[in-house]
Amino acid sequence: MNEQLIARLRGIVGNTQVLDQGDLTAYELDWRKRSRGKALAVVRPGSTAEVAEVVKACAAAGVSIVPQGGNTGLAVGSVPDESGTQVVLSLSRMNAVRGIDPANLTMTVEAGCVLQTLQDAAEQAGFLFPLSLAAEGSCTIGGNLATNAGGTQVLRYGNARELCLGVEVVTAQGEVWEGTSGLRKDNTGYDLRDLLVGSEGTLGIITAATMKLYPLPAAQLTAWAAVPSLEHAVQLLGLAHKQLGAGLTGFEVMGRFALSLVTKHFPQQRVPFVDADNDTPWCVLLENSDSESEEHARARFEALLEQAFELGCATDAVVAENIAQARALWHVRESIPMAQAEEGLNIKHDISVAVSRIPEFVSETDALLRKEIAGVRLVNFGHLGDGNLHYNVQAPEGGDARRFLEEQEERVNTLVYDQVERFGGSFSAEHGIGSLKVHKLQKHKSPVALGMMRAIKQALDPKGTLNPGRVLGDIAS
Amino acid sequence: MNEQLIARLRGIVGNTQVLDQGDLTAYELDWRKRSRGKALAVVRPGSTAEVAEVVKACAAAGVSIVPQGGNTGLAVGSVPDESGTQVVLSLSRMNAVRGIDPANLTMTVEAGCVLQTLQDAAEQAGFLFPLSLAAEGSCTIGGNLATNAGGTQVLRYGNARELCLGVEVVTAQGEVWEGTSGLRKDNTGYDLRDLLVGSEGTLGIITAATMKLYPLPAAQLTAWAAVPSLEHAVQLLGLAHKQLGAGLTGFEVMGRFALSLVTKHFPQQRVPFVDADNDTPWCVLLENSDSESEEHARARFEALLEQAFELGCATDAVVAENIAQARALWHVRESIPMAQAEEGLNIKHDISVAVSRIPEFVSETDALLRKEIAGVRLVNFGHLGDGNLHYNVQAPEGGDARRFLEEQEERVNTLVYDQVERFGGSFSAEHGIGSLKVHKLQKHKSPVALGMMRAIKQALDPKGTLNPGRVLGDIAS
Repeated sequence: MNEQLIARLRGIVGNTQVLDQGDLTAYELDWRKRSRGKALAVVRPGSTAEVAEVVKACAAAGVSIVPQGGNTGLAVGSVPDESGTQVVLSLSRMNAVRGIDPANLTMTVEAGCVLQTLQDAAEQAGFLFPLSLAAEGSCTIGGNLATNAGGTQVLRYGNARELCLGVEVVTAQGEVWEGTSGLRKDNTGYDLRDLLVGSEGTLGIITAATMKLYPLPAAQLTAWAAVPSLEHAVQLLGLAHKQLGAGLTGFEVMGRFALSLVTKHFPQQRVPFVDADNDTPWCVLLENSDSESEEHARARFEALLEQAFELGCATDAVVAENIAQARALWHVRESIPMAQAEEGLNIKHDISVAVSRIPEFVSETDALLRKEIAGVRLVNFGHLGDGNLHYNVQAPEGGDARRFLEEQEERVNTLVYDQVERFGGSFSAEHGIGSLKVHKLQKHKSPVALGMMRAIKQALDPKGTLNPGRVLGDIAS
Repeated sequence: MNEQLIARLRGIVGNTQVLDQGDLTAYELDWRKRSRGKALAVVRPGSTAEVAEVVKACAAAGVSIVPQGGNTGLAVGSVPDESGTQVVLSLSRMNAVRGIDPANLTMTVEAGCVLQTLQDAAEQAGFLFPLSLAAEGSCTIGGNLATNAGGTQVLRYGNARELCLGVEVVTAQGEVWEGTSGLRKDNTGYDLRDLLVGSEGTLGIITAATMKLYPLPAAQLTAWAAVPSLEHAVQLLGLAHKQLGAGLTGFEVMGRFALSLVTKHFPQQRVPFVDADNDTPWCVLLENSDSESEEHARARFEALLEQAFELGCATDAVVAENIAQARALWHVRESIPMAQAEEGLNIKHDISVAVSRIPEFVSETDALLRKEIAGVRLVNFGHLGDGNLHYNVQAPEGGDARRFLEEQEERVNTLVYDQVERFGGSFSAEHGIGSLKVHKLQKHKSPVALGMMRAIKQALDPKGTLNPGRVLGDIAS
C-alpha cells in the first residue's frame, strides 16, 4: 500500500524529489532539537499543481501530510510524528518571486521563498518588506504565514497576517484556491485568507501569497533609554506613539538581569547604562523610521527624549550616531537568548497581555515565582509595544539547571500561564501551538472557541489529512 | 408555536422590547428602500446574556434570526425576508462604551454603539478612532464589523477588520465566546475573529468588540490636484506614499464628468480646476496627517506637489488654508453621489482591482460600455489608494432614466463585472453581499472558495438559524 503511494508520488513530482532513504534529519528533527519524528517519505513538489496531486494521492491512500517550509518553527508543528506513516510535504522548491507590482505596493511569492529573499527582492525594487525575525535567513514565507509569524516590526506593520493580501491554497481535497489577488479591499464572502493564515498547515497548504510592500524609509534611527520602572516604560511608549506617530517602528524592553547576562557572557558588547555604577532596572530600545531625512528623524527623537526626561519616564538615553552603533544596540537586544543559553538551561515563555497591564503582571508574577521557588531568576524582555514578553525563567545561581527544569518546568509553566489567564492574556503570542502546546490550548482557550475551531477543522479536512494532531490535537477525542 | 416563542422572548428581554405590532418600517425596510420584508417580531436585547437566550429560544423553535445594527447596509443584509417568519434581533440597546484603555490604545464597545459615538469617545480621551464613512451618524460598530466596512481612511488604517483586536460573539447555538481581549498578538488557534468579521451575521452575532485607537494627529491637511490622466494619478499616489509615508491618510480620485455633475446641481460649491476654461480630466484629493505640526505638514505637502509638477503627474494644485477650506474640498467629493441622484437614476458599482491596473481597467471598460450602449455616461470616482472605484453608470442625457435602468441594468452589470473578473478584481470591494449580490457571488467567486465557505457555514450554523440566505444563498442547493 505504502509502496504504491510512493510510486504514485514519484510519478507526480519526479523520482529524485521523493526522499525515503538516507539521512532525513533536516526534515524530521525540529528546530530546537526537542522532537525527532520519522517520515514515510519527504516529497518536494515543484509547482502548485504538483502539490494538489500529492494531496489527492495521500488523501486517497489515507496517509496524512505534514507541510514544511524552512522547518524553523518553535512549536514543533512541521516535523512528522514517530509513526513513520506521515508524508512530509516540503515547499522548499517552490521559491520563485512571481512578481513585484510597484504601483500596487505588492509582491507575489511562492511559499518556499526564504524570508530574506523577500526582503532583498523588495529592497532591490526600492521598497520595504517589513517582516523581520531571527530565522529570516532560513525560514520561508509559507511557514511565516502558516504560523502568523511576528518579529521586531509588528508594532508598526503587524504580524505576517496583516502583511498578507491574498493566498493561493491547496485544500485537504487537493483543490486549488487561487486567492493571490493583491486587492486591498474585497468583501465577497468569508475571510478565508485570514483563517488559513495561522492555521499551521491544518486547514490547507499555502502555496503562494501576495504580500504588502511599503516605501523604504529615508532614515531609520535607534535610541536606547534607561527607564526607572516598567510603568515608566509604558509611559514612554505612549509618549513615543504620540510624538512619532507611525514613525515608531520598534519598542523593545529589557530587564537589568537579562542585560547583565549579556555583559557577563559577551563582555565585548557595550550595554549602555548597565554597569556597577548604575542601577537602572530597565532599558528600552526605540526605533524611529522617517520618510523625510535623517536630520528630521534625529530632531524628532531628541524632542521625544527631552520630554521623556522632563516627565521622568527616562533617566538617560543615547541615540545611535550611525548604522554601526544602531546595529550594536539591536545586537545587545538579540543577544539575550544566547546569553541565557550560556548561563544554562532555562524555561521560555512567549506571552502577551494588554500593554497597560504589563507592569502589574510582571510585578505580581515575579513575586509569586520568587515566593514559590527559592532562588529563581527572572529574565524578562520583549516587544513591549505589542504587549509581548519573553518572560523566561533561569535556574537558581550555581544550581543544577537540568535538574531544575526536570523538577520545576511544569510547575513554573502552570504558575506563569495561570497568571496570564488571570490577566486575560495569551500563552502563545507569536510562536503558535504546533504539537508542543496542544494541551495548553485545551486548558486555557475558551471551550466555545475550541468548539468552533474543531467544527471548522472537521468541515475543511474531514479525513484529517493535513497536519493531524497539531493545534487542536486529536479532534475525535 | 410562534406565540409560544414570542412569549418566551418577552420573558427574556422584557415585554416592551419585543415589537410585533405597529409600524416596524425602521426594522423592515432596507436603507436604500429597495427591499421591504416582514418580521415575525423585532427583539431588542439589552445584554449579551439576553442575546444568547434569544438565539437559544429561536434555534429551539426553528425560527431564524436577522441580526441588525443601524440598518444602513447597502447590500440588503439586515432586513427580514417577506415570509413573516424571521425574528429581527436589534443590537441597538447594547450601546455602552465598556472602556477605554489609553496605554493599550484600545476601546471596548458594545455592538450597538453608533460609529460617531466611538469617534467622539476616542477624541474626548485624546485619541483617534479612524473608521469613517457616510453613515457614521447612524450605523453601528457591530454592523461595521459584520460587513467589514471601509470608508475614507482605509488607505492608512485599513477596513473595520484591521481596526479590530477582538470580538465577543454569540454563536448559532447561543453560546458566548468572550474574545474581546485587546491583545495585539495572540497565536492560539484559528483566527475566529477575522472569520466572524465580515460574515454579515451568518456565522455568529457580534455583541461587543475591542477596537484599536491611534494618537490624534497634530495636523491634518487636505490638497486638491488636477492630473492629466489616471496613469498620472497612480504615479502621484506612488510619489505621495514615498514622500509622506504613513502621513498619507486619504487619496481620492474624481473624473471630470462626476465633478461637472456637482457644479451643475450644486452651483454654490466651488470645484477647483473644473470649469469652462479648463479641461482637466481628473482631480485628486489628498489628505496628509502629521504627528508634528501644521507647519511641517504644509511644508511636506508643498514639497510633494512641487515634485509632482516637475514630473508632470499634476498640472495644478491647491492646499486648503484652513479647516473650512478642507471641509469644502471633502464636501465636493462627498457630494458626487447626491449630484448623481439629482441627475437621475443610475447604476452603481463598488469594485476593486489592483491599483496598478486601474487606468487600463477604466480605459477598456469605458470603451466597451460606450460601444455597447449608445450615449451612456460614466461617473467615475473613488478610493484610488485602495484600488476601489465607484464605477457608476448614468443614463444617456435627456433619456428616460427609469426605462434605461429597466432595460440595461443587468446588461451593464454583466459587462462591468465580467471586466472586473478579467482584471482579477472584486465586484464588491466594501459593501458586502447581503441578499443583493448572492447571485453575483455564485457567478464570480472561485468554486473552491465557495465550497470552503459553505462547509464553514454548515459547521458553525448547521440549523441555518443565523441570517439564512444571505451571503451564500440557500446552501442546501
